[in-house]
Amino acid sequence: MAKEYWINDIDQAAMGADSIAMSESRMPVLNKLNTRFTNEQPLAGITIGACLHVTPETAVLVRTLKAGGAKVVLCGSNPLSTQDDVAAALVKDGFNVYAWKGNDAEYYDCLRLTLAQSPDIVIDDGADLIVTAHTEAKNLVQNMIGSQEETTTGVKRLRVMEQEGALKTPVIAVNDASIKMMFDNRYGTGQGVVSAIKALNVLFAGKSVIVAGYGWCSKGLAMRAKGLGANVVITEIDPLKALEAVMDGYRVMPMAQAAKIGDLFVTITGDINVIRKEHFENMKSGAIVANSGHFNVEIDIPALQKLAAKTRKEVRQFVDEYTLPNGHKIFILADGRLINLAAAEGHPASVMDMSFATQALSTEFALKEKKDAGVYSVPKEIEDYISKLKLETMGIKIDELTEEQKEYLSSWEMGT
Amino acid sequence: MAKEYWINDIDQAAMGADSIAMSESRMPVLNKLNTRFTNEQPLAGITIGACLHVTPETAVLVRTLKAGGAKVVLCGSNPLSTQDDVAAALVKDGFNVYAWKGNDAEYYDCLRLTLAQSPDIVIDDGADLIVTAHTEAKNLVQNMIGSQEETTTGVKRLRVMEQEGALKTPVIAVNDASIKMMFDNRYGTGQGVVSAIKALNVLFAGKSVIVAGYGWCSKGLAMRAKGLGANVVITEIDPLKALEAVMDGYRVMPMAQAAKIGDLFVTITGDINVIRKEHFENMKSGAIVANSGHFNVEIDIPALQKLAAKTRKEVRQFVDEYTLPNGHKIFILADGRLINLAAAEGHPASVMDMSFATQALSTEFALKEKKDAGVYSVPKEIEDYISKLKLETMGIKIDELTEEQKEYLSSWEMGT
Amino acid sequence: MAKEYWINDIDQAAMGADSIAMSESRMPVLNKLNTRFTNEQPLAGITIGACLHVTPETAVLVRTLKAGGAKVVLCGSNPLSTQDDVAAALVKDGFNVYAWKGNDAEYYDCLRLTLAQSPDIVIDDGADLIVTAHTEAKNLVQNMIGSQEETTTGVKRLRVMEQEGALKTPVIAVNDASIKMMFDNRYGTGQGVVSAIKALNVLFAGKSVIVAGYGWCSKGLAMRAKGLGANVVITEIDPLKALEAVMDGYRVMPMAQAAKIGDLFVTITGDINVIRKEHFENMKSGAIVANSGHFNVEIDIPALQKLAAKTRKEVRQFVDEYTLPNGHKIFILADGRLINLAAAEGHPASVMDMSFATQALSTEFALKEKKDAGVYSVPKEIEDYISKLKLETMGIKIDELTEEQKEYLSSWEMGT
Amino acid sequence: MAKEYWINDIDQAAMGADSIAMSESRMPVLNKLNTRFTNEQPLAGITIGACLHVTPETAVLVRTLKAGGAKVVLCGSNPLSTQDDVAAALVKDGFNVYAWKGNDAEYYDCLRLTLAQSPDIVIDDGADLIVTAHTEAKNLVQNMIGSQEETTTGVKRLRVMEQEGALKTPVIAVNDASIKMMFDNRYGTGQGVVSAIKALNVLFAGKSVIVAGYGWCSKGLAMRAKGLGANVVITEIDPLKALEAVMDGYRVMPMAQAAKIGDLFVTITGDINVIRKEHFENMKSGAIVANSGHFNVEIDIPALQKLAAKTRKEVRQFVDEYTLPNGHKIFILADGRLINLAAAEGHPASVMDMSFATQALSTEFALKEKKDAGVYSVPKEIEDYISKLKLETMGIKIDELTEEQKEYLSSWEMGT
Repeated sequence: MAKEYWINDIDQAAMGADSIAMSESRMPVLNKLNTRFTNEQPLAGITIGACLHVTPETAVLVRTLKAGGAKVVLCGSNPLSTQDDVAAALVKDGFNVYAWKGNDAEYYDCLRLTLAQSPDIVIDDGADLIVTAHTEAKNLVQNMIGSQEETTTGVKRLRVMEQEGALKTPVIAVNDASIKMMFDNRYGTGQGVVSAIKALNVLFAGKSVIVAGYGWCSKGLAMRAKGLGANVVITEIDPLKALEAVMDGYRVMPMAQAAKIGDLFVTITGDINVIRKEHFENMKSGAIVANSGHFNVEIDIPALQKLAAKTRKEVRQFVDEYTLPNGHKIFILADGRLINLAAAEGHPASVMDMSFATQALSTEFALKEKKDAGVYSVPKEIEDYISKLKLETMGIKIDELTEEQKEYLSSWEMGT
Repeated sequence: MAKEYWINDIDQAAMGADSIAMSESRMPVLNKLNTRFTNEQPLAGITIGACLHVTPETAVLVRTLKAGGAKVVLCGSNPLSTQDDVAAALVKDGFNVYAWKGNDAEYYDCLRLTLAQSPDIVIDDGADLIVTAHTEAKNLVQNMIGSQEETTTGVKRLRVMEQEGALKTPVIAVNDASIKMMFDNRYGTGQGVVSAIKALNVLFAGKSVIVAGYGWCSKGLAMRAKGLGANVVITEIDPLKALEAVMDGYRVMPMAQAAKIGDLFVTITGDINVIRKEHFENMKSGAIVANSGHFNVEIDIPALQKLAAKTRKEVRQFVDEYTLPNGHKIFILADGRLINLAAAEGHPASVMDMSFATQALSTEFALKEKKDAGVYSVPKEIEDYISKLKLETMGIKIDELTEEQKEYLSSWEMGT
Repeated sequence: MAKEYWINDIDQAAMGADSIAMSESRMPVLNKLNTRFTNEQPLAGITIGACLHVTPETAVLVRTLKAGGAKVVLCGSNPLSTQDDVAAALVKDGFNVYAWKGNDAEYYDCLRLTLAQSPDIVIDDGADLIVTAHTEAKNLVQNMIGSQEETTTGVKRLRVMEQEGALKTPVIAVNDASIKMMFDNRYGTGQGVVSAIKALNVLFAGKSVIVAGYGWCSKGLAMRAKGLGANVVITEIDPLKALEAVMDGYRVMPMAQAAKIGDLFVTITGDINVIRKEHFENMKSGAIVANSGHFNVEIDIPALQKLAAKTRKEVRQFVDEYTLPNGHKIFILADGRLINLAAAEGHPASVMDMSFATQALSTEFALKEKKDAGVYSVPKEIEDYISKLKLETMGIKIDELTEEQKEYLSSWEMGT
Repeated sequence: MAKEYWINDIDQAAMGADSIAMSESRMPVLNKLNTRFTNEQPLAGITIGACLHVTPETAVLVRTLKAGGAKVVLCGSNPLSTQDDVAAALVKDGFNVYAWKGNDAEYYDCLRLTLAQSPDIVIDDGADLIVTAHTEAKNLVQNMIGSQEETTTGVKRLRVMEQEGALKTPVIAVNDASIKMMFDNRYGTGQGVVSAIKALNVLFAGKSVIVAGYGWCSKGLAMRAKGLGANVVITEIDPLKALEAVMDGYRVMPMAQAAKIGDLFVTITGDINVIRKEHFENMKSGAIVANSGHFNVEIDIPALQKLAAKTRKEVRQFVDEYTLPNGHKIFILADGRLINLAAAEGHPASVMDMSFATQALSTEFALKEKKDAGVYSVPKEIEDYISKLKLETMGIKIDELTEEQKEYLSSWEMGT
């Protein structure tokens, strides 16, 4: 099963290289890290297995890791999200890449090929690679220095493993860093989803948009949909998040009720079957249903197919029309896969700059401070360091504490 | 020069038909008009020459006009905006269509082919067809029942003609109807531009976005860019509009100053050379420049080419990179053509539903009440009628005046 | 009935002078006009009768008119809106003032005292003074040079008079100027209402706020309530305005339905009995009901009193609690009088600067160009002039048309 | 020094009782707790010393604590924030109250009177009472069951004490609960500040508003100022917060630069001398400067007084005008004390409902689970419990996890 690479079309490499160059020009923090890594070689001699969406931004990350001395092996973290030209360009650059758009059948084989290279560190997006390592490559896991996880969904899986004592490697929860969640999850996802949906030519102004979930990603989406003029409704199962949504000016109601009024539904919850048979049956004709959660389990498409399989019709790329027995038409986008990656190009380079800088620095940190198995936070210093670099590259200056202010902050005696 | 049609590829008709069907399902007001027109045949026996962006929404309009009894001849109103599959589907439907994407050289020939069919009524988008009729087909103009104009730019041209005594036909300024400007110009353009630009994977959050102009279209864009998290700056030449922009919370400054701070520039002014040599020379490296005004004259691309012609490089579709002598890179989108139509699909069906219902009803009105040459408003009754239909199709009920309220509104004696 | 003044307490003059000074410092456009008027004396020899809310900003206006050579007589335009200290300061300045806070009984006598001074020009706010002149002082009306109206409600009354042939004097509809409506009606009212209500310590975040009407004032309120985190619902009787509200992202429904879900209701419609018995009966307990329309007729308080008169209890200043037979408590603010003036100080000086500059310049204009009876618009030049002055005083520069641009705008031949 | 109470005017008790009743009707969660506490008597026999802003909402809290069986002694947590009528009403109810508006000189004496009652638990707002207990009543501190802190500033002081080993009692950081920060700090403060400032008749639309700090409170203020149409600029010393502000669409710059462009400045940082001499000297004439941080140290008023002490003039209540040597006028609000409490009534009841429910339940929790000295978080169960109650009282239903969903969330094997 040893292969140097397994991609769709090596001839697309030149196009991919152009794409990567454009993203690179919009990722100044990674560029600065690249320069430092080139000089300092902090990753010299290690092998990194990365399971990520194969996009131009990921290419800029893996090049930075390579600049630091690492060998990087890359597989896709979603069957639909690989950009084939980028994969080709990376192969030309000498990376082992196992990924192509539309890889449903051999998805896990690509993960296995990655693990076969015995990575010292695994960078994951959804935890498929880490989980596979635990189930199929137990020896490898014992010897790994560590791993890093990019998504809310993946961190949730790994925390369950930790609680059950099944986790055998240290994991840095890159996803949970503020600098990742606030920008990538919130603003990256928010804009990505509305853009992907808009690309299907849906006007947001005046529409009732139902967002399932009110975590960072869904908050970003709700904010952007509102910013485009939609009337947004939130569904939640957590009372504190539900209350926050109310106070943020949204309506909150159970999905059973929201199903009846929505023009557009988007799930971003990390849970299964959030939109189900009974919801489909109550939707208005013309309703559009999409998912932006990591896995395509949030919309119960099998249930819809039971209701209306024969009526399925692809009306344009990424848009399937189903006609229910009641005559209502329902449009499912991108088969329920995360819409912003499936039907668009994923997050903008300028936001991935921060998330992937966090990945690169977390790898460096993992090598310096080895840990026991468990889920760890990104150190605050890494977040501050990236924030400073990012502001600097934007030409933005901020205040510094005066001596008097520092002293005041470290005292407690002075009151009213 | 007689041709039944002149399009790119008749074999794309099936795909175009699917697209049209999808738009049709999102244009309920036009569907209702279609039914009435079919029954009443108000346009029986007339020929309509339409110069419009050849999109699925336009297809739904021309089908409605045909349902009312008219013969419709269609040419494109912009060299880049034609969707070839839609053009093919319309030819299959029996329309005379003269349009294809990328028609620079024979653009005016297509207009001439349209006029050659002796239209009784002309529906225009930018006034190219009406102006051409005035300059090349004077006899035809004398005999035309009337015409209709869809854009701010076109209405401006026609008003100048009227002032100079050059206008020889009545024109209904469909563009100026509130129901058109508030929704199509403001929200259609606003969302369209941000989507087209986002499709190029630019994050709006945290970016300085410079919008040239503060009319309906630019207001919509400013609002949407702000809604996506950008920091928006407005440039204007009209003091009242500038003041409104300030009060709306935007910064206002001359372009010479804005040029230095913008990450993204969009012109929507209806004027020429709004971004010029001296502005390019002061831009930050990486600046992105686009136009959403009707004509591609707002950005002085010839000046940029003088500065940096040899460096031009297409880095992805619709994105040209220029490197100035100072080393700064500037990205021009879609050659300065209106970005929302060139790089995306134009306005969503649900908003064109209102604009094109206004077109259909204005045609019916023009036949009923013939006018002298001049620019006319859309009657308020048409706007109210469409508003009512639209609300009805959205399932929204509103209040009605009580008898007591009607009486109060028609009185003046009752005060404090 | 001749009196030099009729106010509450002349001893408050010093306090009023301080208030006026503070407003004056925030009205730079009027200050500039004051300087010019002092030099040019454009109003020399005329008498102006002004019926306005007696606030510090009004004081700055009447001083400007006086600086221009006019004699100014002032009465209040609302029983509750007079600031007694300002009235006192103006009397000390030598103005004839007939106004005090809480003047219900002698409200019209104050108007009569104003008319008794035979004004050449009347500046009105709600049209009470103009209507009274028409009904009680017909000779005066015949000889008046003109009049000016500040409110939507007043302009509506005067247009009805014009249609019925009852209007005997030219009126400049100052209210309808863009520079007045966009800023004073929209942003002045918007902020004023939310502030007045907030002063009663109501949190907007998470509340359902029902706004009756979607004109300029109500749009401003809706925008501000949304900006403070409320979930806003609009009721309307005009389909086009209703549709605009939908597209702006609000829910739209009849009041009968909104009554059941609102936490806070505000009427700004210009019509009578917009909230009625059947609405009160369906409200949630704790609902707060206020009006910001010009007259206190929009809430049917007599109907509420029939339902629950005995339970009325003033729970704090400007807040009356009523307990309905169903046990629900309803809170009426400021007796249904326009809340932003009754419970707060009216519009900020910086916004009245533009509206009152329009008044001052309209008076100058009326003297120069005498007109027949009828309702007239403010000339566009006045709006542009004020906009320029305002921008200048804010230190904001804007672009100017190049020669090439001017020429382009005045041409029609150049197209695609 | 033993006194039963020390307040301004016992005769205002009736007015205070009305105020409290109105707030009570808007605090349904505390009402529900009151009922349960009355039945269960969880606080029987303990004495609580509370140092809080003496407002109607605080009255509802202390009544709830009393209903649970506690004896409550109350002093003010700020010299300017006491509402004298509420203090009087509480004395009538039998509480020991030591507080009045304007208590600068005997502020600490009131704290001492509170400690003299030997509280078992201390509820603090700014940490003055806890710190005073540590410095002046060491025996008491040793025996206290615990304490609770309401503010960011207070928690910061207590954490410094903890780090230095000076903290001798367990403290529950009520401030840090999400249910407190998200609503009270963010939306309470946000609306409170804009309302207090607006009450001084300042229009936000079009103004440059400089917010110092980007924590929860300042975020709320920035959002609300933007929601009212202002152009908001943030200053920060933390790079991550600064970056978040940029991504949220605000401009970020050092205060030295912001000083030159601001129309309105508000500090909410928790630090000293954030606006200093060099900033005052560069402000535009007419600039307004306010503080909403807990202590009045954020604006360096002594420095301003050195510059311009003789020119100080109170132009209206809470507004002092200073004229600098350069002729510029600067307006300081409420002497730099937290503006929303000094010049307005503090946070709305509906938001304090959640914060004070957290206080009440934290007290109950502290009695159940005794801890060592240190700073502790509010248990997540308390937050969820309050969220559920609050949603319930708002009539809002949310989804519940299905069995299938629960199982999915507790698994990690299922991936792509």
